[in-house]
Amino acid sequence: MDISRPHSLSAAEAAQAVARGLISSVELVQACLAHIKDVEPAVQAWTFLDPDHALQQARAADQLRLSGASVGPLHGVPVGLKDIIDTADMPTENGSVLHAGRTPSRDAAVASMLRAAGAIIMGKTVTTEFATRTPGKTRNPHDPGHTPGGSSSGSAAAVAAGMVPLALGSQTGGSVIRPASYCGVYALKPTHGLIPRTGMFQLSRSLDHVGLFARTLEDLALGLEQVAGYDEGDPDSRPRARVPYRTIAAEEPPLPPLFAFVKTPRWSQVAPDAQEAFGELVEHLGDRVEEVELYEGEAIDWARTITDAEVAVNLAREWETGRDRLSPSLRTRIERGRQVLALDYLQARAQVPGLVAGYTELFEQRYDAILTPAAPGTAPKGLESTGDPMFNSVWTLCGMPAVTVPLMRGANGLPLGVQLVGPRHGDARLLRTARWLVERVAAG
Amino acid sequence: MDISRPHSLSAAEAAQAVARGLISSVELVQACLAHIKDVEPAVQAWTFLDPDHALQQARAADQLRLSGASVGPLHGVPVGLKDIIDTADMPTENGSVLHAGRTPSRDAAVASMLRAAGAIIMGKTVTTEFATRTPGKTRNPHDPGHTPGGSSSGSAAAVAAGMVPLALGSQTGGSVIRPASYCGVYALKPTHGLIPRTGMFQLSRSLDHVGLFARTLEDLALGLEQVAGYDEGDPDSRPRARVPYRTIAAEEPPLPPLFAFVKTPRWSQVAPDAQEAFGELVEHLGDRVEEVELYEGEAIDWARTITDAEVAVNLAREWETGRDRLSPSLRTRIERGRQVLALDYLQARAQVPGLVAGYTELFEQRYDAILTPAAPGTAPKGLESTGDPMFNSVWTLCGMPAVTVPLMRGANGLPLGVQLVGPRHGDARLLRTARWLVERVAAG
Repeated sequence: MDISRPHSLSAAEAAQAVARGLISSVELVQACLAHIKDVEPAVQAWTFLDPDHALQQARAADQLRLSGASVGPLHGVPVGLKDIIDTADMPTENGSVLHAGRTPSRDAAVASMLRAAGAIIMGKTVTTEFATRTPGKTRNPHDPGHTPGGSSSGSAAAVAAGMVPLALGSQTGGSVIRPASYCGVYALKPTHGLIPRTGMFQLSRSLDHVGLFARTLEDLALGLEQVAGYDEGDPDSRPRARVPYRTIAAEEPPLPPLFAFVKTPRWSQVAPDAQEAFGELVEHLGDRVEEVELYEGEAIDWARTITDAEVAVNLAREWETGRDRLSPSLRTRIERGRQVLALDYLQARAQVPGLVAGYTELFEQRYDAILTPAAPGTAPKGLESTGDPMFNSVWTLCGMPAVTVPLMRGANGLPLGVQLVGPRHGDARLLRTARWLVERVAAG
Repeated sequence: MDISRPHSLSAAEAAQAVARGLISSVELVQACLAHIKDVEPAVQAWTFLDPDHALQQARAADQLRLSGASVGPLHGVPVGLKDIIDTADMPTENGSVLHAGRTPSRDAAVASMLRAAGAIIMGKTVTTEFATRTPGKTRNPHDPGHTPGGSSSGSAAAVAAGMVPLALGSQTGGSVIRPASYCGVYALKPTHGLIPRTGMFQLSRSLDHVGLFARTLEDLALGLEQVAGYDEGDPDSRPRARVPYRTIAAEEPPLPPLFAFVKTPRWSQVAPDAQEAFGELVEHLGDRVEEVELYEGEAIDWARTITDAEVAVNLAREWETGRDRLSPSLRTRIERGRQVLALDYLQARAQVPGLVAGYTELFEQRYDAILTPAAPGTAPKGLESTGDPMFNSVWTLCGMPAVTVPLMRGANGLPLGVQLVGPRHGDARLLRTARWLVERVAAG
């Protein structure tokens, strides 16, 4: 690792350097703050960042370490939190003027867990309006004329621009995997319920997931290990045995993985350069990949019906008291959601177990992971749209873990992610399979 | 116990008599069948009863015992199952001509669990149409001109009439506690999710509960011990530590319980004789009871919104293919359910955790159980209506355990139950509290 450029260290490297005393947390955080000062004017990843407060946390971390106390796996390492994750010491505004100046009294479960692991909460990253589709101010670090994607725009961009090694976001449609693909970083949207959502803005209980952004797969596993766990405040969280994600992700697969290349019925909407890049990847993987057509029914419609209805409920107060300060597109969506019949909502939800069962068989019978685009192409030009989650919704609906790896580039030089999807609760193996793929591609 | 009248034994007594060889299962089942032959023409509790098949199971149970194999806690004891509980060896018609002749290929989870405990599945008891409000043929054993209540009409009546010592039913509104009150037996509707519903007709996932009918509290605990447990087919079932219900229910409370007498906003709808009977009971309990007013918001409306919407989904196929063979009242209900907005449905559901939290505090701070009517009075005259679940819906909505004890009688001599309600997962203690109440009243 290159200790002379601390902001470029991975979270695992940084944690190791701090633990060994090669660098102090204050030095690490100072280096990241200095880098942020350089790049933030162009990228605009943060909605709240108080350098003094970050340094104060770093000083406390350093003092704790010097006192001989045992240190956590992220001791002294700065992380970014999407601004829908409550923090007791910083505002949390959910990307809406309606929540401007909102200061929660308690940390979200994931914020507490990260602090318990020793992390420095660097600041709050830009989210689209209530984690939906209306963009914030963030720009793509690879080209400020392009969207970073959304809704976890700031988290993806901050990690991509080297401002922090690790950030949390959330995905209800494609809000983690898509911006990670556009910004050229690794990201994981784990199994539904694996990371508790207590203390986060709830958009859709059925489809909301916490996700992670990092510049290495190892960091995704390291981060997941800190924030996966049971929390009784999240009704979809369950007590489970602790999984050693980092260890499993680092292991060699017993056999070379076999991938199911899924073009989806939306392949014609994939940009030609992205189609070509996938063609080359599939060719490169040879007998380790097979093209598979999956049944998905009306999954995208079902996901929309469910989220529209749940969004309407979760934003009912905002709609009633301040709809004029919602974006027109969100207003339209809420109006649509308010008209959804319970019958259609429940019938859409009832489709999910069947879909999941079908996909589970696919993994049991033959494949290690689904290989499919993370997005229809590179980051679209302009900042008006955060792009289309059409390649993410099905897996989000099914609560299956998805990871994106920044393996390819488009004709314009912008990054292009490869999405891998695994069976529910196959998060650790999915990370292992992703690592195998990265190494295989690197080997040429 | 009076071994000379085997049909009048409790399930615990019968199981003990069989285990000790005082009576064979065949003798026990024969005695019950003979009694059924006498009283069934007036009561009409059964929709399927094959004496040969019951005796065949009893013979197998006797052979197993004589072979020296270890026997289960209900070995050789006949039980009745509401005809919405699937049985692989008998039809399950869900109280509708639309499902006439339906023969499931698998046992419901509870049927398997009872068989594993050694029980003889005596037959299938009458349910109202799809466990809703349109009555079946069953009459009240105490007066055939009165309703037995519903929807678990046959299970309540069969136990009350001494045909079987134990029967299972289900409650989505008041379908266990109300018929038990009308028929003068003990019944338990345990915590939501505690008894798995896999393989039963689903009316409303959010409010459906399995319940038990017996002639003693001990039998409720014995039965619960056999059918409480995790089943992955029921999404509301959870793995939990095994609770020794019978042991706890038999224990002496460390302190005399304190009851919260809850009249509810519907007290004026309680019949005068029932009001008077409650007044006497409360007086008798002296300082062990306090009148408490509970907040319940619009709980009855919320319960209706949720169940109407879920009923519409769960009967969507029947409505589409055979609505002319549904009762007019069920048709009306489904039509209403199909119009419920997802917004209203989800907002109703969102009210439940707050209600539950409020009631939980009540138990944590002061009271052992809520004491409240099981029904607005004794069984109404006539067979057109199964009575009103107005005193049951709130606890069903909240998934809290409720037990009814046949402590009182109306002016007409018909039975009148006292309902006790406990905190979620307080099932064992609720049974213990109920036993204390019964003994206290018996002590005069």
